[in-house]
Amino acid sequence: MAKVVVLRWGHRPLRDARLTTHVVLTARALGASGVILSDVKDGKLKETVEKVTKNWGGQFFFEMGTPWRKAVKEWKAKGGMVVHLTAYGENIQTGDVLQRIEASENDILVVVGSQKVPRQFFSKSVSDFNVAVGNQPHSECASLAIFLDRFFEGKELTKNFENAKMRIIPQKRGKKTIKK
Amino acid sequence: MAKVVVLRWGHRPLRDARLTTHVVLTARALGASGVILSDVKDGKLKETVEKVTKNWGGQFFFEMGTPWRKAVKEWKAKGGMVVHLTAYGENIQTGDVLQRIEASENDILVVVGSQKVPRQFFSKSVSDFNVAVGNQPHSECASLAIFLDRFFEGKELTKNFENAKMRIIPQKRGKKTIKK
Repeated sequence: MAKVVVLRWGHRPLRDARLTTHVVLTARALGASGVILSDVKDGKLKETVEKVTKNWGGQFFFEMGTPWRKAVKEWKAKGGMVVHLTAYGENIQTGDVLQRIEASENDILVVVGSQKVPRQFFSKSVSDFNVAVGNQPHSECASLAIFLDRFFEGKELTKNFENAKMRIIPQKRGKKTIKK
Repeated sequence: MAKVVVLRWGHRPLRDARLTTHVVLTARALGASGVILSDVKDGKLKETVEKVTKNWGGQFFFEMGTPWRKAVKEWKAKGGMVVHLTAYGENIQTGDVLQRIEASENDILVVVGSQKVPRQFFSKSVSDFNVAVGNQPHSECASLAIFLDRFFEGKELTKNFENAKMRIIPQKRGKKTIKK
């Protein structure tokens, strides 16, 4: 199975604090290998993510401050491809874009923006595919979740996170957690 | 097809402003009929949502300030059922909870929290089902998106939003919008 890494662009530490946290935790819970927070550093966010990974287990990296051009260039140099999630792209439901992505079998850098993204994100030099999880305005967190869920065909939700200190035992009612 | 309405609990206008906006826009874009922002009012949020609906079309209601107990009680009185999304619930991937929900054919109130939710949300008096979109901590925005995508089997992403002033024409590259 191809590896997926998420590049989060346009994070504004004050304004986007909670939203980017949700994007990163979504990436982790839905099967991505890690997140690159491009162009900015946010120590508090890094701390939150590392605490979650320490408690809830699994391998997950969080890198920050890398300029997006550099991250994209390095990814492509390693043979990876870039999927830009945008409401303007090919509709994941009505077209065959997901099938074409899957057919390539390359590792994927999923780029999600926050504010209005640079025009270049749409160009061949950056994105191999521009994918819309519906062509309505909504949320990069939601788009990322659905993209990963469809790409991994739901299997990410059954994943075992090794070395977890805490684990939830699913139940019809109430909360049950095991601590090691 | 059953109708889905989302109840957003625990919104804190300052802290959750952007996140709740994303939750509401996700609900709209992914096929829900409306959102009830329970217990609090947030005029700015209402304005944002109404502006999106006015520009991008479709029928979508946004109600705020209703106490959650009242909203749940009224929903149940009309024969609707309540699905509480929580990391502690039955895993949507490993169990048959989605099939059981679909089999009932009732309208659904999907409850999503922000902060730690009241214990009662897990009890029979409130939730008919407690559903986990994976048993890892992540995001109510992501959980809602995946729940709706799976419930509507992707069809929500092809939905036509009537009376839209703006519409995106999906493209492989670039941005194309039609304005009426």
